[in-house]
Amino acid sequence: MGYPDTFAGFAVESAEKWNQPKYREYKPRPFEDRDVDIQVIACGVCGSDVHTVTSGWGACPYPLIVGHEIVGYVKRVGDKCVTGLKVGQRVGVGAQAWACLECRQCKNDNEVYCPHMRDTYGSEYPDGSIMQGGYSSHVRIHEYFVFAIPDALKTELVAPMLCAGATAFSPLNRNGCGPGKRVGIVGIGGIGHFGILFAKALGAEVFAISRSDKKKEDAIKLGADGFIATQDKDWNKEHSMTFDLIVNCANSTKDFDLSAYMSLLDVNGRFINVGLPEGDGFKVEPFKMLGNGAVFGFSHIASRPEIIKMLDLAAEKGIESWVETLPVGEKGCGEALSRCYANDVRYRFTLTDYDKAFPN
Amino acid sequence: MGYPDTFAGFAVESAEKWNQPKYREYKPRPFEDRDVDIQVIACGVCGSDVHTVTSGWGACPYPLIVGHEIVGYVKRVGDKCVTGLKVGQRVGVGAQAWACLECRQCKNDNEVYCPHMRDTYGSEYPDGSIMQGGYSSHVRIHEYFVFAIPDALKTELVAPMLCAGATAFSPLNRNGCGPGKRVGIVGIGGIGHFGILFAKALGAEVFAISRSDKKKEDAIKLGADGFIATQDKDWNKEHSMTFDLIVNCANSTKDFDLSAYMSLLDVNGRFINVGLPEGDGFKVEPFKMLGNGAVFGFSHIASRPEIIKMLDLAAEKGIESWVETLPVGEKGCGEALSRCYANDVRYRFTLTDYDKAFPN
Repeated sequence: MGYPDTFAGFAVESAEKWNQPKYREYKPRPFEDRDVDIQVIACGVCGSDVHTVTSGWGACPYPLIVGHEIVGYVKRVGDKCVTGLKVGQRVGVGAQAWACLECRQCKNDNEVYCPHMRDTYGSEYPDGSIMQGGYSSHVRIHEYFVFAIPDALKTELVAPMLCAGATAFSPLNRNGCGPGKRVGIVGIGGIGHFGILFAKALGAEVFAISRSDKKKEDAIKLGADGFIATQDKDWNKEHSMTFDLIVNCANSTKDFDLSAYMSLLDVNGRFINVGLPEGDGFKVEPFKMLGNGAVFGFSHIASRPEIIKMLDLAAEKGIESWVETLPVGEKGCGEALSRCYANDVRYRFTLTDYDKAFPN
Repeated sequence: MGYPDTFAGFAVESAEKWNQPKYREYKPRPFEDRDVDIQVIACGVCGSDVHTVTSGWGACPYPLIVGHEIVGYVKRVGDKCVTGLKVGQRVGVGAQAWACLECRQCKNDNEVYCPHMRDTYGSEYPDGSIMQGGYSSHVRIHEYFVFAIPDALKTELVAPMLCAGATAFSPLNRNGCGPGKRVGIVGIGGIGHFGILFAKALGAEVFAISRSDKKKEDAIKLGADGFIATQDKDWNKEHSMTFDLIVNCANSTKDFDLSAYMSLLDVNGRFINVGLPEGDGFKVEPFKMLGNGAVFGFSHIASRPEIIKMLDLAAEKGIESWVETLPVGEKGCGEALSRCYANDVRYRFTLTDYDKAFPN
């Protein structure tokens, strides 16, 4: 068996064995007339993959193949597709695989906030099957969530942009990041390193904000104009009320003094969270939030127009992700998940060598 | 003694005696060259007055005369005043009495967020004196915080606009309230009733949001197009993702399910708090905030340009506060504070009859 009857991938079987994915074949859901089949050639490894397979975010439908930073070649295009994709074309898929495309949110280019949206992996499809991700030979995705990759972008470098990059890009795009604005990026990791790259590319003055000085050199190389270490005494005082926008990419709320970060914002500035920390969440103290009328919120991946805009910007400005590659397979996927869990990557893994793992 | 050497007012002497203000004379701070002296003729009674005199917001510098919704006649204008105020003119003062007028915030018409701002009462002046409020015969205020009152507005009705009205107006003004927008006002009280009046006057579709149906009739009279009672089962479901802006004027976080309110907002909608509840604050759960990318924040009274804009709007549209008057004095001030504490007012007290309490 094989494509088109069966797809194959590396599936996590239980929370206990979260870093020991096993080879597994499965029957894809039925092909629909706006679907696209993609032969995967690379896939980024996202923090979400780890949160999901460890059940850190809640119940996970094991066995599950994760991966939602997918690059591949189009193998088949549905009869009613309208976005112009061609067989053989290099395309990408991010963390979202479906939306109704009919509700108010979808019609306003906010399909990422469609109440019916489905994730690229782990969500249930109407036929009862569970969507499987990109640690796989193939994926079958509605065309609306498939993006042509500009030729200028290298496969292994563009893969992580499809979730981490888009997640960093959307809050910058929606909150006025640009020339004359001072933007802070909290947490230099998979998402945060894109935050620095894109905020700089959009023309803002960019500060990286991290616990220690450990990643200062990296931040400057990525394009940061300034660096703040939050373990320094009175770290926030000097910068009080000077930031227009802060994008929080940190993945933990432990010892996170929200009020201290909020105090960096100028009047009506915005603090937007893109990480989804496990645990209890944030405590908001009204009296400490009142001094600048700033707002606090969350942002969820990015819409189709935003992903296209991001890819074009990356191609135009020659933006390159910082990536370490690992060969897809039981060993490579396991190592990627383990090291991602341990934050042992600067700043993203891309799984490659799909032709070796899935010879057709 | 008397003006200009001494001012007199009704001061609270301790937290225990918060609702038993006593007549007291005091020496005003030195007159400076941009100061204006005002003979008070009316003063609104604000929730802040109660929070302050009960020490609910923290230490209060007793004895203290509160009141920061002040209307009166100009008695004296400093030599370097530039705003054109004339002796005899009817003017108003709100909750802010001073700012540096030199910092970035002040220069951007955000003097209300000046790090050096001083409250109309309770704040310390450079000579060591404590600023006293409008339950007084006179006040001495920097001209920047003194507003000409349009002739069309009645004294006892305009007084509460100077803090409560301005507090409701600023978040509407800064967050796009206008035609085509759906705006929710949470909490129908002193501030909330202005929220409904002003949101409607600005052209938005307005929903009042309250615990029970008790104030529904009032809300409709005030101009609300819709009403939501949060004690109803699934009260938020029907309105999910339909609001552009919600201004929270409620004064308690007890049993306040922030996530349920946030779910009313459309993508990137805004939830702005203007009440300052005592106690622990809000808990923000990231997973429940992610569905619409909405933001959550606070707003603090209003800037000078906003207060002027609000007064002009009120005059132009004939907006009338709902006010109950009480004569200023030990009895009247005590009753106003007690009934304000008990939420027994629809929707604001204005202290009047200053000529009887302070015959000069």
